[in-house]
Amino acid sequence: MITKNKIKQIKSLTRKKNREEMQSFVVEGYKSIRELKNAGLSVEEIYVTKEANKLHDLNPEIISIAEMKSISNLKTPPGYLAIVKMLKTQEIPERGLILALDNIQDPGNLGTIVRLADWFNVEHIVCNSNTVDLYNPKCIQATMGSIARVQLHYVELETFLKDTQLPIFVTAMSEQSIYEKKMPTDGILVMGSESHGISTEIMQLGTKISIPQYSSDGIKTESLNVATATGIVLAEWRRFTGM
Amino acid sequence: MITKNKIKQIKSLTRKKNREEMQSFVVEGYKSIRELKNAGLSVEEIYVTKEANKLHDLNPEIISIAEMKSISNLKTPPGYLAIVKMLKTQEIPERGLILALDNIQDPGNLGTIVRLADWFNVEHIVCNSNTVDLYNPKCIQATMGSIARVQLHYVELETFLKDTQLPIFVTAMSEQSIYEKKMPTDGILVMGSESHGISTEIMQLGTKISIPQYSSDGIKTESLNVATATGIVLAEWRRFTGM
Repeated sequence: MITKNKIKQIKSLTRKKNREEMQSFVVEGYKSIRELKNAGLSVEEIYVTKEANKLHDLNPEIISIAEMKSISNLKTPPGYLAIVKMLKTQEIPERGLILALDNIQDPGNLGTIVRLADWFNVEHIVCNSNTVDLYNPKCIQATMGSIARVQLHYVELETFLKDTQLPIFVTAMSEQSIYEKKMPTDGILVMGSESHGISTEIMQLGTKISIPQYSSDGIKTESLNVATATGIVLAEWRRFTGM
Repeated sequence: MITKNKIKQIKSLTRKKNREEMQSFVVEGYKSIRELKNAGLSVEEIYVTKEANKLHDLNPEIISIAEMKSISNLKTPPGYLAIVKMLKTQEIPERGLILALDNIQDPGNLGTIVRLADWFNVEHIVCNSNTVDLYNPKCIQATMGSIARVQLHYVELETFLKDTQLPIFVTAMSEQSIYEKKMPTDGILVMGSESHGISTEIMQLGTKISIPQYSSDGIKTESLNVATATGIVLAEWRRFTGM
């Protein structure tokens, strides 16, 4: 049984403003909830339908399928839903490899990029303030628990990049190949938005690098998906610096 | 104006069986249609709503918004829809870099992989017969025209791999790093499905390679998205062989 007030409160978390006010977000699916709990996040409330309740280790509250539908953000609710407290972000360090995102709009792309950052041991992502919100339900589903190990910072990206002492690399189309550049151990890698790439102002702040294209007949593929491109550059950066 | 019969015929192309029978598929959006036409595919019929009809170079037939809704596969129809003839696939060559996919289920992932193959000049993808259909509307939307330059072959993958003379590389978790292996110019790269990876039988047929993980504290990210992993391995293969 779940009260009307509680339903309203959970539904309110679909809006960024309310998530920020309550410093909480919604996660669905046993595996995702388990992962966030294991990673040390504070899981405040857990709801489960009787039908989905195979594992009791999370000590969830049992609700009906209709109730689950009323609080779920998914077309086919997995039957597990939890309210989780946001982690406090630390300060952005002036060392290591930092990823900067200029205006990524697709929550699935941002989620995939967070997973990639986790894989390649990038602990901090700096985002322009109009980048899609990390705690968007679609984004949370795509991060697969990596959210616990990667910190996102929403800032005025241009100002941030102008102020940093770290070397900046911007990913562009048809510029000098990443394989011809010497990437440093400490630095900032900037990736642009799906449709517009990196803004002109930010593009001027860094060394341009690009992923070479290998088409045989000069026909150009329009572009790589931003998450895929991020994966390729991060892999090459780590290979090159050897750490 | 579009006849009821025509609507029925277009809608029937949402099913793989009908697409194969008619050797045709549906593409939506001016840009995608334009790209396929430029790439030399035979665009048979083009429909457009009066509201979307900004460009007339495709010589489309004008229909109403209600009619467009009745033939579109998308929640928000872009207003341009075309029937396109499938390209005839050539034989699978015994040279070059060939990508093999074992049971990819997500049309978005397959579409992204086709775009990646195009970028890295991989002209042939061999798929296990239970891989998602390339001409699935969601997949077509994700390929962005690369479908004209990359050929997919649906085969019994295990039999195909047992019969080939080319060296086979299978992407696995936690095996020898791709950076420690010598990739050949001619060879087959196998990628596994989203949830199950490469099947046990196929895994035994090739040299295992993996993308190294760089986590600092031993906590393992579950896995990389299959499209992202494909991009990283293809980029490294081309960098290593220099072509």
